[in-house]
Amino acid sequence: MRRPSVRAAGLVLCTFCYLLVGAAVFDALESEAESGRQRLLVQKRGALRRKFGFSAEDYSELERLERQAEPHRAGCQWKFAGSFYFAITVITTIGYGHAAPGADSGKVFCKFYALLGIPLTLVTFQSLGERLNALVRRLLLAAKRCLGLRRPRVSTENLVMSGLLACAATLALGAVAFAHFEGWTFFHAYYYCFIALTTIGFGDFVALHSGEALQRKRPYVPYSFLYILLGLTVISAFLNLVVLRFLAASADWPERAARRPSP
Amino acid sequence: MRRPSVRAAGLVLCTFCYLLVGAAVFDALESEAESGRQRLLVQKRGALRRKFGFSAEDYSELERLERQAEPHRAGCQWKFAGSFYFAITVITTIGYGHAAPGADSGKVFCKFYALLGIPLTLVTFQSLGERLNALVRRLLLAAKRCLGLRRPRVSTENLVMSGLLACAATLALGAVAFAHFEGWTFFHAYYYCFIALTTIGFGDFVALHSGEALQRKRPYVPYSFLYILLGLTVISAFLNLVVLRFLAASADWPERAARRPSP
Ligand SMILES: [K+]
Ligand SMILES: [K+]
Repeated sequence: MRRPSVRAAGLVLCTFCYLLVGAAVFDALESEAESGRQRLLVQKRGALRRKFGFSAEDYSELERLERQAEPHRAGCQWKFAGSFYFAITVITTIGYGHAAPGADSGKVFCKFYALLGIPLTLVTFQSLGERLNALVRRLLLAAKRCLGLRRPRVSTENLVMSGLLACAATLALGAVAFAHFEGWTFFHAYYYCFIALTTIGFGDFVALHSGEALQRKRPYVPYSFLYILLGLTVISAFLNLVVLRFLAASADWPERAARRPSP
Repeated sequence: MRRPSVRAAGLVLCTFCYLLVGAAVFDALESEAESGRQRLLVQKRGALRRKFGFSAEDYSELERLERQAEPHRAGCQWKFAGSFYFAITVITTIGYGHAAPGADSGKVFCKFYALLGIPLTLVTFQSLGERLNALVRRLLLAAKRCLGLRRPRVSTENLVMSGLLACAATLALGAVAFAHFEGWTFFHAYYYCFIALTTIGFGDFVALHSGEALQRKRPYVPYSFLYILLGLTVISAFLNLVVLRFLAASADWPERAARRPSP
């Protein structure tokens, strides 16, 4: 087997083991609490059914109604500001799912919108991230000159270190702001920022999603949008520095293959 | 302003306009239907409250209960198979949010798990995608030889075309399979596959999430996992061919900057 194939096989094995370890830990951390919550729920449900004398049919009608009500609880999600928010979650691939297109036409448009939007966003953020890295490099150079170093140089390690600090600062600042605006604990707000900026976007915590914030809290709405976009720029700058270089270095493009002598 | 900065500014402008257009279209497609659904819901709720003689307090207790019941409706999500599924959605950044860590310890572990897992997955899929491209290149070369071409060459256009076909086939095959196993329409199953493989992951459609599929439908469970992982490999192969090359070509890394004469 040739070297790139060995490398690929090794990476697959690593990822698979990583998934097994993750599954075991999540099982250990969450499984028991889940069963407990479920038992409690069955009890509460029984008590409620006895209190109001629901039949099983009545209860499932109630459930159906509540399930339909879920997306409406947070107010209108599809007026312009909400749709803008949704469009951001599509092209950044965060996809909270706090709102998802209900109409078939919406689903079709969403597909085409993502098809063009995701590559555009990827390229935009990488370009912005790279500009940010260039700026940081110039700032570090100027700082080193100010400190009196002759022939100052900015190494990749300097940049990676600054990138790490910037990512940590972005998360911490975001957490402070969202804890204030959403009334979350700092821990939960930090978790929200982390899950959003890694583009995982579970949707268990979603900014602008309580108390009809999209309609009522005008200055907070653009701030939230801006935070996601600037935060992703900082993350992209870091990825540009660390991961993209690694990917490109190991890439095996046909031009390079063509340059190699054929077997 | 230098060329890379002009490029970055242009891209930001494009992305912003793209978001505005998206917001306007989503607003037009979804906003009215949302208001309609909301009105209908208020009516139904009123009818139900009259039927059972709920007080407002009773009703909000019912609502709270139903909201807590929502994550349990699909059966246990945190036994090993479910946790494995969850781990996949974390490191691939799909993040359906059909299950999200409830315990604080789960949230903390999830953060560290994503921090290491996302770059590992990114590198693994890029490596796999590249191997897939190499394989396709060899197959196309062999096919051209069989067709009697002398000095056959495989151009990047050939590879991009094959990649597009492979992506379309992956989506269509997945849609057929999930429509069968989940009882969705082909349209919805296709939408599910698209939203999953772009790693948006709204969570409005989630495979293995009805009828306690994780516990009951044994052979279907690994199939679903495998589909996501193989599907992402095909997409990565395509991205490796089209986007990564573009990103790397425009990257401005310090080594290159150092090689340039300083101003
Ligand atoms: K998501
Ligand atoms: K996502």
